[in-house]
Amino acid sequence: VKIGVIGAGSWGTSLSIVLAENGHDVTMWTHEKEVIEDIFKNKVNSKYLPVGKIPDNLVATNVTDFLAKSDIFIIAIPTQFIRTVFMNYNFRYVTKKPFVSVAKGIEQVTLLRVSEIFEEISPGSIDNFAVLTGPSHAEEVALKVPTTVVISSDDHGLSKSIQSEFSNAYFRVYSADDVIGAELGGALKNVIAIAAGLIDGLELGDNTKAALLTRGLAEISRLGVALGANPQTFSGLSGLGDLMVTCNSRHSRNRFVGEQIGRGKTLKGVRETMSMVAEGITTTDSAYQLGLQHKVEMPITEQVFEILFHDKPPLEAMKELMNRRTRREWWW
Amino acid sequence: VKIGVIGAGSWGTSLSIVLAENGHDVTMWTHEKEVIEDIFKNKVNSKYLPVGKIPDNLVATNVTDFLAKSDIFIIAIPTQFIRTVFMNYNFRYVTKKPFVSVAKGIEQVTLLRVSEIFEEISPGSIDNFAVLTGPSHAEEVALKVPTTVVISSDDHGLSKSIQSEFSNAYFRVYSADDVIGAELGGALKNVIAIAAGLIDGLELGDNTKAALLTRGLAEISRLGVALGANPQTFSGLSGLGDLMVTCNSRHSRNRFVGEQIGRGKTLKGVRETMSMVAEGITTTDSAYQLGLQHKVEMPITEQVFEILFHDKPPLEAMKELMNRRTRREWWW
Repeated sequence: VKIGVIGAGSWGTSLSIVLAENGHDVTMWTHEKEVIEDIFKNKVNSKYLPVGKIPDNLVATNVTDFLAKSDIFIIAIPTQFIRTVFMNYNFRYVTKKPFVSVAKGIEQVTLLRVSEIFEEISPGSIDNFAVLTGPSHAEEVALKVPTTVVISSDDHGLSKSIQSEFSNAYFRVYSADDVIGAELGGALKNVIAIAAGLIDGLELGDNTKAALLTRGLAEISRLGVALGANPQTFSGLSGLGDLMVTCNSRHSRNRFVGEQIGRGKTLKGVRETMSMVAEGITTTDSAYQLGLQHKVEMPITEQVFEILFHDKPPLEAMKELMNRRTRREWWW
Repeated sequence: VKIGVIGAGSWGTSLSIVLAENGHDVTMWTHEKEVIEDIFKNKVNSKYLPVGKIPDNLVATNVTDFLAKSDIFIIAIPTQFIRTVFMNYNFRYVTKKPFVSVAKGIEQVTLLRVSEIFEEISPGSIDNFAVLTGPSHAEEVALKVPTTVVISSDDHGLSKSIQSEFSNAYFRVYSADDVIGAELGGALKNVIAIAAGLIDGLELGDNTKAALLTRGLAEISRLGVALGANPQTFSGLSGLGDLMVTCNSRHSRNRFVGEQIGRGKTLKGVRETMSMVAEGITTTDSAYQLGLQHKVEMPITEQVFEILFHDKPPLEAMKELMNRRTRREWWW
């Protein structure tokens, strides 16, 4: 199968290697010439994925015509850039063939999920759409560390075919049919990752961190249900699984932001020390807005919002969470 | 309220302190005279919970008559001893008043949950029964680290009243009505904790550990559904929450057993180095038997069973898990 990958960041490159090693011909598109040259000459994408060796059947290009010959497309660019890239490079044809989003996030201002952005760009594209997500550091996949992900699509036949193209001995793909839940889980988990970082920074202990992750998952499940998702999805690889890998990782930028603020820094102060963006910061704002719009109680998201954007002291936020009126564990 | 606590181990003592600090009169029963003396003289249970200060309204005794005057009882003895202790000390009267189990486990050979053991000892006792469980290291609760747990009972009024007796600013109690799910989650999570330890010992990385915890939770949820539980319960504090605190903790004996075997030891070898029992070992056998009895596919439990009891090499087990035929994410 000929596969076109839009985006040559760490995750796009890592997935392209998996697909090429599975025997597919992979064309990775990027506008960054030095990345294309590096891959051509040195068989490595040293800027974004120094640990991954590029196989011969994986080529990189900035020529969109090469890309257009693909049978399946993978969209591996950050959520906030999808709309601009698709309009600027006339990528609308991509949505006429099976295409898989691996982006995690909610578009700012519009509050749209990735599949909803595509429905605006190209109505009807949801029929060809799938999302691939789960607990997967790109670097570990490149090192062939055993990894599991889930592919979700309204069209189960589409999920099944993409499942078989990706699966191998170190990359196991499960299938599901809840696009809304898979997209929301991947985005919203970053809010809880910031909260988990706050607990680490405050040095509050294992009980508190487990409480926060579990209750965090409960509230993003509640928002998900209000938006049409299946609650079970949030307990799977795209929700809980991704949350675990993020919240326990030294590498997660979102967890790091929380940790620094927990230790007493302000958001502005933390931002000044970081070269890359922590997506969870804008997602916290989006999640807060979605909660208000859909009248969903999201106590942890609200406190993270207050801490990030109104400098609320984290310990005070924690006390308020513990002293809410007692509740049932689950309600929708 | 007068509360009687049977068992003065670390968890029983820690919960007794919470209840006493909430203003209740607490009587803790144990047959260990040195613990009673220590609490009376030194206001501490240095054998089981050296970090906890005993308040004046918490007394320890081995006189069962004192205990009998309580309005509510807490059962804080290991699952495997419940039947013997209740028969030997004539504690059957306890089940005629509201009583709360905080034991985690499945009785060996019979494969019964704690509430089912009580139904055998004292038919009809389920009407007075509640289970309190969740992510809670006893030592952290004694240090007033913010902690959340869940109380589950068939009788929602009973849950509500116990919820209000336990709740305070550092101990937050949610209520639920799925006794089966709460009991199974607390027990079965120890099997997955051993598996998580194996991943740590094999040094397989964050992706693999998150995969294993998530798929582990999926399979104990499947067994739970076959046994009459609500699947959502396993994604709450008694399932996922407890799993997280166990699998990420340096203190967990179950995780430790897995880690040592992952590094190349045999179960026999690990056991020789441990003074205390890791409950997950017997629970693995029980879970495996329950899976067979109820025809529930439990791939991770099966591999842990083979590794523990038939010296299967952990890496080989891992490969088999990754190479199973591709599946849907959720099925029941």
